[in-house]
Amino acid sequence: MILEKEIEFVLAIDALKNVSRRNFNLDNSRRENTAEHSWQVVVFAQILYPYTRNKEKIDLGRVLKMLSIHDVVEIDAGDTFLFDDKANEGKFDRELVSAKRIFGILDEPLRTEFLNLWLEFEAGETEDAIFANAVDRMIPFTLNCHNNGTSWTEANVELEKVKKMLRPKIEQASQDMADTFDVLLKKAFDEGKLK
Amino acid sequence: MILEKEIEFVLAIDALKNVSRRNFNLDNSRRENTAEHSWQVVVFAQILYPYTRNKEKIDLGRVLKMLSIHDVVEIDAGDTFLFDDKANEGKFDRELVSAKRIFGILDEPLRTEFLNLWLEFEAGETEDAIFANAVDRMIPFTLNCHNNGTSWTEANVELEKVKKMLRPKIEQASQDMADTFDVLLKKAFDEGKLK
Repeated sequence: MILEKEIEFVLAIDALKNVSRRNFNLDNSRRENTAEHSWQVVVFAQILYPYTRNKEKIDLGRVLKMLSIHDVVEIDAGDTFLFDDKANEGKFDRELVSAKRIFGILDEPLRTEFLNLWLEFEAGETEDAIFANAVDRMIPFTLNCHNNGTSWTEANVELEKVKKMLRPKIEQASQDMADTFDVLLKKAFDEGKLK
Repeated sequence: MILEKEIEFVLAIDALKNVSRRNFNLDNSRRENTAEHSWQVVVFAQILYPYTRNKEKIDLGRVLKMLSIHDVVEIDAGDTFLFDDKANEGKFDRELVSAKRIFGILDEPLRTEFLNLWLEFEAGETEDAIFANAVDRMIPFTLNCHNNGTSWTEANVELEKVKKMLRPKIEQASQDMADTFDVLLKKAFDEGKLK
């Protein structure tokens, strides 16, 4: 059948809908899954793009591709909570194995294109990846600041840790995003969502 | 606060995670929601793009933007099952009201850009919109052909109706996609998922 590998791939990634993340949806009804997150980060990138540094050097369409597939590796490797140091040990190696299996379903050139987009996101060094990483950190933070912040409170996450883990990558992409981060972080702290 | 409207928008669209569609995930565990669908269709577009007609006239990055926001209107208007003629009456008008409210949260130029992308998708006349519509029809069809097809069987959907409602828009974008559609449709019928 024509498109056999393309169909196999899109069916394989359906499993991302079953990967549960730590943070909750805005209405606190349940934890979000990684498919939902991947959609929301793709939309958020489009509305934050005007505020980023060096936007003339950023290919927004390419950023959307990168963000849409950046978490597909969680199908095999699971979601790793950013604030759990222990869980983050060996994360890249686990995810690389997953990336090779999942993107490997496709033929060239897409197999290598997706793998390279994922590697570029992980390295976080190109203008596209710097922006993509900033948006990816901004969205769960924004949700936590506006829902009950349960993923922080249940893990006793401290303000200084959130700041250390998120702000540098956000500020690297955009001063406006970093300024907004500061306002929201203070509010979340005042509301007791962070220690 | 800087980014106030951008934050308000991304929080407003979080509700898409709670909009339930008729079709089920691949593993039949539950109906998918529209946020998940919006992510999967963005990825599927990237892997089907090489097979589309007139791809030199298609701006894939723009298609990804269009697909990522095309169902946001369902937050107010709900998901409308394609095979329910009654439910489809007045659909465009309901969704237009929703589009104006939700995209209206944003400032210009993004407010008008998103509204126009949505209108372009609905009209389905530009090369970008023809391709986007084809992918949007192909993904729930593909899932139904590989899961139990419950959204078809529970509504007694007939093969001829699926063919009539889906194939023309798919064939308009790609002969390879239409050929694959034919193979999968026959298989689904042989398996009793369609009358």
